[in-house]
Amino acid sequence: MNGMKFTIVGAGSSYTPELLDEMGMRRKQLAVREVMLYDIDEKRLGIMEGFCKRFSQKMGLDVEIKSTTDLDKALYGADFVDTQIRVGGNKQRVKDEKIPLQYDLVGQETTGAGGMMKAFRTIPVMLNVARRMEELSPTGWLINYTNPTGLVTEAVTRYTKANIAGFCSGGIFPKMWAKRAMGIPYEKVQYDYVGLNHMNFISNITIDGRPVTEEEFVKIAAENDDVDLELIKLLGVIPSPYLQWYFHTNEKVAKFKASPKTRGEYVQDLEKEVFAAYADENNCEKPAALAKRGGGGYSEVAMGFVNAVYNNVDTKMVVNVPNQGAVSFLPESAVVEVGCLVNKTGMQPLHVAKVPEMCWGLIAAVKNYEQLAVEAAVEGDVRKMKLALLAHPLVRQWEYVEKLVPELLEANKEYLPQFFNE
Amino acid sequence: MNGMKFTIVGAGSSYTPELLDEMGMRRKQLAVREVMLYDIDEKRLGIMEGFCKRFSQKMGLDVEIKSTTDLDKALYGADFVDTQIRVGGNKQRVKDEKIPLQYDLVGQETTGAGGMMKAFRTIPVMLNVARRMEELSPTGWLINYTNPTGLVTEAVTRYTKANIAGFCSGGIFPKMWAKRAMGIPYEKVQYDYVGLNHMNFISNITIDGRPVTEEEFVKIAAENDDVDLELIKLLGVIPSPYLQWYFHTNEKVAKFKASPKTRGEYVQDLEKEVFAAYADENNCEKPAALAKRGGGGYSEVAMGFVNAVYNNVDTKMVVNVPNQGAVSFLPESAVVEVGCLVNKTGMQPLHVAKVPEMCWGLIAAVKNYEQLAVEAAVEGDVRKMKLALLAHPLVRQWEYVEKLVPELLEANKEYLPQFFNE
Amino acid sequence: MNGMKFTIVGAGSSYTPELLDEMGMRRKQLAVREVMLYDIDEKRLGIMEGFCKRFSQKMGLDVEIKSTTDLDKALYGADFVDTQIRVGGNKQRVKDEKIPLQYDLVGQETTGAGGMMKAFRTIPVMLNVARRMEELSPTGWLINYTNPTGLVTEAVTRYTKANIAGFCSGGIFPKMWAKRAMGIPYEKVQYDYVGLNHMNFISNITIDGRPVTEEEFVKIAAENDDVDLELIKLLGVIPSPYLQWYFHTNEKVAKFKASPKTRGEYVQDLEKEVFAAYADENNCEKPAALAKRGGGGYSEVAMGFVNAVYNNVDTKMVVNVPNQGAVSFLPESAVVEVGCLVNKTGMQPLHVAKVPEMCWGLIAAVKNYEQLAVEAAVEGDVRKMKLALLAHPLVRQWEYVEKLVPELLEANKEYLPQFFNE
Amino acid sequence: MNGMKFTIVGAGSSYTPELLDEMGMRRKQLAVREVMLYDIDEKRLGIMEGFCKRFSQKMGLDVEIKSTTDLDKALYGADFVDTQIRVGGNKQRVKDEKIPLQYDLVGQETTGAGGMMKAFRTIPVMLNVARRMEELSPTGWLINYTNPTGLVTEAVTRYTKANIAGFCSGGIFPKMWAKRAMGIPYEKVQYDYVGLNHMNFISNITIDGRPVTEEEFVKIAAENDDVDLELIKLLGVIPSPYLQWYFHTNEKVAKFKASPKTRGEYVQDLEKEVFAAYADENNCEKPAALAKRGGGGYSEVAMGFVNAVYNNVDTKMVVNVPNQGAVSFLPESAVVEVGCLVNKTGMQPLHVAKVPEMCWGLIAAVKNYEQLAVEAAVEGDVRKMKLALLAHPLVRQWEYVEKLVPELLEANKEYLPQFFNE
Repeated sequence: MNGMKFTIVGAGSSYTPELLDEMGMRRKQLAVREVMLYDIDEKRLGIMEGFCKRFSQKMGLDVEIKSTTDLDKALYGADFVDTQIRVGGNKQRVKDEKIPLQYDLVGQETTGAGGMMKAFRTIPVMLNVARRMEELSPTGWLINYTNPTGLVTEAVTRYTKANIAGFCSGGIFPKMWAKRAMGIPYEKVQYDYVGLNHMNFISNITIDGRPVTEEEFVKIAAENDDVDLELIKLLGVIPSPYLQWYFHTNEKVAKFKASPKTRGEYVQDLEKEVFAAYADENNCEKPAALAKRGGGGYSEVAMGFVNAVYNNVDTKMVVNVPNQGAVSFLPESAVVEVGCLVNKTGMQPLHVAKVPEMCWGLIAAVKNYEQLAVEAAVEGDVRKMKLALLAHPLVRQWEYVEKLVPELLEANKEYLPQFFNE
Repeated sequence: MNGMKFTIVGAGSSYTPELLDEMGMRRKQLAVREVMLYDIDEKRLGIMEGFCKRFSQKMGLDVEIKSTTDLDKALYGADFVDTQIRVGGNKQRVKDEKIPLQYDLVGQETTGAGGMMKAFRTIPVMLNVARRMEELSPTGWLINYTNPTGLVTEAVTRYTKANIAGFCSGGIFPKMWAKRAMGIPYEKVQYDYVGLNHMNFISNITIDGRPVTEEEFVKIAAENDDVDLELIKLLGVIPSPYLQWYFHTNEKVAKFKASPKTRGEYVQDLEKEVFAAYADENNCEKPAALAKRGGGGYSEVAMGFVNAVYNNVDTKMVVNVPNQGAVSFLPESAVVEVGCLVNKTGMQPLHVAKVPEMCWGLIAAVKNYEQLAVEAAVEGDVRKMKLALLAHPLVRQWEYVEKLVPELLEANKEYLPQFFNE
Repeated sequence: MNGMKFTIVGAGSSYTPELLDEMGMRRKQLAVREVMLYDIDEKRLGIMEGFCKRFSQKMGLDVEIKSTTDLDKALYGADFVDTQIRVGGNKQRVKDEKIPLQYDLVGQETTGAGGMMKAFRTIPVMLNVARRMEELSPTGWLINYTNPTGLVTEAVTRYTKANIAGFCSGGIFPKMWAKRAMGIPYEKVQYDYVGLNHMNFISNITIDGRPVTEEEFVKIAAENDDVDLELIKLLGVIPSPYLQWYFHTNEKVAKFKASPKTRGEYVQDLEKEVFAAYADENNCEKPAALAKRGGGGYSEVAMGFVNAVYNNVDTKMVVNVPNQGAVSFLPESAVVEVGCLVNKTGMQPLHVAKVPEMCWGLIAAVKNYEQLAVEAAVEGDVRKMKLALLAHPLVRQWEYVEKLVPELLEANKEYLPQFFNE
Repeated sequence: MNGMKFTIVGAGSSYTPELLDEMGMRRKQLAVREVMLYDIDEKRLGIMEGFCKRFSQKMGLDVEIKSTTDLDKALYGADFVDTQIRVGGNKQRVKDEKIPLQYDLVGQETTGAGGMMKAFRTIPVMLNVARRMEELSPTGWLINYTNPTGLVTEAVTRYTKANIAGFCSGGIFPKMWAKRAMGIPYEKVQYDYVGLNHMNFISNITIDGRPVTEEEFVKIAAENDDVDLELIKLLGVIPSPYLQWYFHTNEKVAKFKASPKTRGEYVQDLEKEVFAAYADENNCEKPAALAKRGGGGYSEVAMGFVNAVYNNVDTKMVVNVPNQGAVSFLPESAVVEVGCLVNKTGMQPLHVAKVPEMCWGLIAAVKNYEQLAVEAAVEGDVRKMKLALLAHPLVRQWEYVEKLVPELLEANKEYLPQFFNE
């Protein structure tokens, strides 16, 4: 059969049209035969199918758009399965945010105790997708964007045999920053990248193969406005924006507590607006509000991977992959976010010979948390859940662990079969 | 010459008689010819020499007691050089404690920002001792008890060729606890021990080769009353008492802030009492107040090492040693506190095949801090000082670093030639 | 029950009285209640039981001597199980020697193709012993002397949960040499030891903690008369005598081919003489011919281990143990022969930070062979058998592999159920 | 300045026109401004300059051809410096071949004792080139084709700061084989590649991302006609053709001894013929005899590297690079031949998570030899020369070492200043 089948799991997400848009832009490069939309929410799925058909027709993109609520049908024979699910929806996200904030702890959908709960809800669902793929799409690729992508990818690689590549738009942030700051095209910007999802550091930035000047470094770094510029200059390497939660904890927590709405609540409102636009049968353009939704760059990364694999083109990309020794101070089984060579044979991590001097301990501390959290999520093990929080640099204190654990479990009860069922 | 020359650097410390006491108890085992007391404080040195002579005479210990303020004379030909110095005295210790407390951060003489400042004051002095030993006592052993012993030992091993063994009484805590709780003699109690000084974890405790029962574990653990017993039971391994600063941070900081005196101020008062007793020419017994001074067990550990080395007796001991791969996730150059085989050839670390699942990340995080702090201390590098504090799990936030650094440097100005000269 | 049960598997070996002799010498140290002799050869077992009773009576050693041909009875409740079996007897050993010699290859009972065949015959029997011990003596120790001890120990550690310590008298050779050459007592001689059984190198020899002089080094090295002294001086470290097969291959093969009898044939004759003496009911002394039998030092090593474990005495010993990272360039699962700390908790390898510059490649090459041979032996896999021989530095050529494999299998047919059954 | 300066060191080699030919084919891709020919042999240099000018004119390749015997002038400002030198010429090569053959040892220009002598002659010259480049072309790349390329590259990376990439056409052999056997284009053939130059193994071959069938594997393997096909099928991975010297030693040595001329002597004759053609002022085509010269594929590899670097195109290539942990069982400082991602930032090795089960020991053994040989070559250390030969799997025996060392040194006397000068 000519062209690929591209399945979107969680297609009811407002993000779906971004993927189509990217397919449209790359239509000469990527032969997509069929886009299969899958969701458990029939209503959103229906709206999205309708919009996607109108949107692709408008773009002149010749691709068959289908939808289903049957997972097996969605996965069967898929070349790529892109996952962007939110188990429990924004309703649960808001709890992830608010519960830790009560104790002046970071409340965030990927970082800290909140991120762990999102992992707990998501991992069982993703393991099911992966296990069905083992059978229904054994050579297909699961492209994961579902957060926390590092933990989800580690769970899938440690407990299934499915092919998975975990992505985050963070992998191309330095390219985005250099373009925004100085108009430099992506392909001229290169760098070393090491760490975990949302816990990574960028060093040795070059433009067209030559090291950036100090001035250029500062211009690029200034685009990462979540972390103090003076701090970045001291470090000499650029931390992920998520490092704000580590280096500016009190300040950011205070800001969040003072905010009238959490990010989750804000997104809930935004989604209503966006979905109203999608549902409008006369509308065949991406709603303006979508840009405020976040996640910029992901569709580009995902389709860059599809191109590298499908067309067998050697491409350097940042991917979440099993370590297997590429980062020597982390366990073999750990999923790490590092530079990889991608082509039709999959992705292979570049060996990381050196890690910036000031961050390896922090990366190790967070990975220790992550591995315990993944095991707790899979096994439904409350002891490991406690150990995970004790190992987390942003929780660590026993007092917090004792209070948080019952509250978090209770708040997520209906989404945690591994903890509450026999 | 028969018998060893045992030099005490910082002999003006109130602790000195404890070492003599241990020599007395081991007199059949250890042939000590000469005890050389060295200090820069002539007054305290004079008092101590007088007391030590009376004390050893009282014990019937046949050893020549000498004193000097000439370092080279003290080190020349010494078989063992025990160091227990306090650069800047308790006056500076009190600053180490109070400055961080202002920001609700741990203020403590070995842990956190305070411990780092103690390292900064101490390391230049200790490097000088070590370098003089390279020449004056090339086969002698430097036995270091000066805190923070992990950082001091790492500085000496990375920057000199002197033989150094870094000790802490923590290495025998499980033996002390099992004895106290159940009357079990030291030699029957064995365990795995891994980590850093004041950042370590004890697992696989056995009594006479058999694993402890759960009940015995709890009895032993309960003796470590700085860490919550429920937490220790959850961990399944016993953390160093110093982990209180990590697992109970807020609670302990609050307690310290509420205390009328810091530990340093308390010790200052105590020392006055103890030294009055030492100065009394009719007194030839250790003052009762000395027991409240802390450091119990160290003289036993130090003399245990002397016995293993001097008499060439295979002995398992916990020592601070260069890692060189014994703990695979830490750098080769890192000093670690692990079980070693000690005999006349020195000490060799036992290979650590497994680390308890929940602590390797924290150990890595603290080691990352330690290595940066050692380099900052040696090079007088303010940037590395900042990086060290950012890497420290108990400081980490940029806001604290920005405030602490100028204040700490100013408060220690006269003791930091590496930062202020040239 | 007071005192230990010490079982000897393969007690019909002429070596058995050496173990009793060592027990006799250590009677104050080791409380042996019962010595259980086990063998499948009833006749030799009977002779040995009779002799051992007379011998122990003569020594005044108060220990109950029993015998059985029932393995479970022998293993049940044993504190230590010493194994010294020879599957197929000297008859098969002679084949191990002669078949490779036909192609001018080393024919030897532990090294090369012959050693591999001995492993193939022995491993299934030893796995059975180990698996019975899992049930019948779960806290007891299997002390293995059966050659090739490295391969046997690796098979047992990789495929069973029994406690096993693999020994060879080679671990104390430098002590024996220094005593013989200069009368220095064992306890004063120390050294680093790294490698595999019969593939190891000794460095950093000290006498009473001080490095040996060049002259002393030469005196000690000269006792290892299987390897050219000029070569040892060049190396600067002392290789195992078995390295003769690697560094002097042609010369030694030529000598063996010229010899009227192989070592196996010589031992066959010697055994007749020795057993005649054992069978003599008036004889209660070890026959003079026993000294020519080889294996000197093993009983000393074995009982040294029993002492360290049973009496919980920290002791440095060379043991064959799972690597688990102690030697960083070898696989985790590899059994290595290195210095260990032994006491009642078992043995723990000392970390090997440095390997002599010229031998790590050869050690790796032989370990690669060993791991393939162990897997071939356990799985009865002819492909892995071929790979093992290709990996062996003393075979390597395809031409040899093609010829040797059918011939070796045929010659050992009745002892290789794993290859010929099913 | 537009376009690159491409310098050829050893331009008097008959191989030079192959590089020009490749430049011609890639003229759209590679902007070459100047080709600078350098040699110490003025006569050959003159002939080659003349021919290259005619040849490039004929091809219509617009590039300036220059020549010089002044190394600094040649290196100054070069973007790429391709080295293909033969210190001592074919005269010495013949000695490398013949001396070991006297003892029935492999005599070959890259493998065994002969290869070591070539390294000894070449390394001092190459270190000089590299050190001049540090100054005269600090961002330029040294592309090394001079054999033994693994040892030369390791010497340059360990002892200088020049940028060097060591190549061998072996890196694309599987592509060449698949094309020859089945007409598959290069870009569809991918594989894992691990080891050292001339000591490597190819596994996991895919065609267009899909694993080859058994039948395809055999077809590809059959093209490697230096190693027995049955052996390759047993291995399941394809060894470098140079493994013939390890797996078929006796057979190949016998064949070489029986041959009327060594390879070196044959090439000497061939070169005369080829140079006569080059010298003919009417000739502007590559002589037919050049194809028999060997080295096919190298110009393609070299220019592929130039393209990846100069045009900043992500490309997977096999390169000789410092290990730095990419192959975990080899030393950090070892140069290994592995898959790398190449682009304008240089090359970064892909992490090697798994090595075929039967070859890691042999690779380690040869690397141990290589590191000792490199040190011997740089330091002029006869002891290390002996250790290197003892460590080499194809020499190993002391008897050979004793005989070979004086003979090899004597035969190369005039080319070994490091051994013979003070």
